Amino acid sequence: MSQAKTLDKPVPPGGVIGIIGGGQLGRMLALAAARLGLKAAIYNDENHAPAFQVTPLQIAAPYDDRAMLTGFAEICDAITFEFENLPSDAIAHLASLKPVRPGRRALETTQDRFTEKSFAQALGLKTAPFAAVSSASEAEAAFARLGGPAILKTRRLGYDGKGQVKVANGADAAAAFTQLRSAPSILEGFVDFAFEASVVAARGADGSFAAYDPPENIHENHILRRSIVPGRLSKAQGEEAKAIARKIADALDYVGVLAVELFVTRDGGLIVNEIAPRVHNSGHWTIEACACSQFEQHVRAVAGWPLGDPARHADAVMENIIGAEAHAWESLARTGALHLYGKREARLGRKMGHMTQLKPLTK
Amino acid sequence: MSQAKTLDKPVPPGGVIGIIGGGQLGRMLALAAARLGLKAAIYNDENHAPAFQVTPLQIAAPYDDRAMLTGFAEICDAITFEFENLPSDAIAHLASLKPVRPGRRALETTQDRFTEKSFAQALGLKTAPFAAVSSASEAEAAFARLGGPAILKTRRLGYDGKGQVKVANGADAAAAFTQLRSAPSILEGFVDFAFEASVVAARGADGSFAAYDPPENIHENHILRRSIVPGRLSKAQGEEAKAIARKIADALDYVGVLAVELFVTRDGGLIVNEIAPRVHNSGHWTIEACACSQFEQHVRAVAGWPLGDPARHADAVMENIIGAEAHAWESLARTGALHLYGKREARLGRKMGHMTQLKPLTK
Repeated sequence: MSQAKTLDKPVPPGGVIGIIGGGQLGRMLALAAARLGLKAAIYNDENHAPAFQVTPLQIAAPYDDRAMLTGFAEICDAITFEFENLPSDAIAHLASLKPVRPGRRALETTQDRFTEKSFAQALGLKTAPFAAVSSASEAEAAFARLGGPAILKTRRLGYDGKGQVKVANGADAAAAFTQLRSAPSILEGFVDFAFEASVVAARGADGSFAAYDPPENIHENHILRRSIVPGRLSKAQGEEAKAIARKIADALDYVGVLAVELFVTRDGGLIVNEIAPRVHNSGHWTIEACACSQFEQHVRAVAGWPLGDPARHADAVMENIIGAEAHAWESLARTGALHLYGKREARLGRKMGHMTQLKPLTK
Repeated sequence: MSQAKTLDKPVPPGGVIGIIGGGQLGRMLALAAARLGLKAAIYNDENHAPAFQVTPLQIAAPYDDRAMLTGFAEICDAITFEFENLPSDAIAHLASLKPVRPGRRALETTQDRFTEKSFAQALGLKTAPFAAVSSASEAEAAFARLGGPAILKTRRLGYDGKGQVKVANGADAAAAFTQLRSAPSILEGFVDFAFEASVVAARGADGSFAAYDPPENIHENHILRRSIVPGRLSKAQGEEAKAIARKIADALDYVGVLAVELFVTRDGGLIVNEIAPRVHNSGHWTIEACACSQFEQHVRAVAGWPLGDPARHADAVMENIIGAEAHAWESLARTGALHLYGKREARLGRKMGHMTQLKPLTK
């Protein structure tokens, strides 16, 4: 296999940042690139994509189309992703042509829930108890070992609660495996957490590191409802969360923004739930509350620029606008900083936009 | 002549805001439209334009090309401008096809320095002493009447100090008229001001009004160097500046953002220098320091949305990045909120970007 390309010097203003994936994250990355005088090129597997509305440089083609990926790489100075599920072959191909950030190792580690949790454990971080499951009988045996209730998840490609089933006993676990089409899976024990949180942080190619204050996150129906910063995390927990993000980023030799979803247990412990090798919904409040948003921060890291200041100059509450809630855009426009993603249909459970309310800085 | 189109209901998310002019103001308007889920279409008379980098909807054609203007209007739900010097015929043509905001009256009043100053005086606002000049002998006579020193400016098409000559006596004034190619001109008496300021404000189609806190502006070589908010204006002067903007906006039945450049005299009076019927360089700090920036505010007004909150949540200093200063982008990226406009050549006196520093709110 050919050597992965690296970036010898920063991408200068006027250069092109390639973004794989044209959803709202790609769109907000493209808008952040534009602020810095960088051009954004978007590659998306469907013709209509929110990010296609904000740059003329765009390719709509399947994610495994080698010729199209080659042409895309041709026009880019550096390449990144708005999602972690690109086929491994495609990543390797792009990386042989242009610098890809974050790199293949980060993507492959986080694409698979079992690999991801094993990686976190190896770093000495706490996770839910878990076991790999590749047959119905393994599912039953894993349940017997971990105890219940538990949750069976496909190892790959799940998001927003998709690809997961709650199980109460061994027979449930076996049935859930079949329900998930016998895909390689992972059984996770439930964590009795007090609340959820996340930490969004960036690492530069030079090893520099910048973490945003960790928000508390409220989920509804497996979808992020709102992020509150500062939430219920103590100052010490906030620092611990940032240290966890740094440990993960360093171990992956990570370049770019990553997010670590955490459970905060009743005794105050922090348990790593998921690692997202990209900008994250729980970091959207940084657009208004920080001098450098998570989107600009990611573009800076990918382009080899110095990281920006992650300091928060205000408290913030970010609320997602989901499905039909977007129909109320006119009244939403009266009540805070409104972001809409340019999606045509307000389907059930679809993230259509978000609102951020700023409040005076408290801590 | 056909009737100007009006907007019966707000342009919904997914609608298209047409922007005439593809410079940095058009670019930042397009980025603001994207935040709100609106698409931006750009019409520019040159092939390379900063705003062409941030939307696929773009036409490069002369500003008087009727067929192209017609096609552009076809794809737009409402149309606005990043500059005030579009030919009157073109404005009337666009207005016969789609709602144009601000309207023809605002543009025609402010396109001509004599009309603009006469309009301000008729509203009871203070201006520098002035006289229309259409021949060398009129220039000399006007100088004799106003006294010196004075400044001869073309009535139309000047910006950043272009199209103006300082004159010390009547012979100078006559020579200056010839130097300005005998274009219809205006002689303006000098104002002995303490400092310069501006007020950026918005008016909605429903008559609603929202003004930003007025910055103090520092010019160098006729180009804005920096805007400071709050500057040396007192609270009372700030309120007076906002009242001036409101008087002007109401009188023009204005829709959108406008800026009024002011001289603050040593005795504390406010003198109207220029009216810009558009977003303005001295309002760039609102991107970071306000929940709703001047760009979003203008898009909201043009699209018939409710105006956003102009409250300032921080003090700010905005500094332009001019010409070769842009070569220092890597060190500038370390020191504040950096905006670069995607211009290819860092020509002398060209605005390449700007930086905003936020500071804790003082007043």
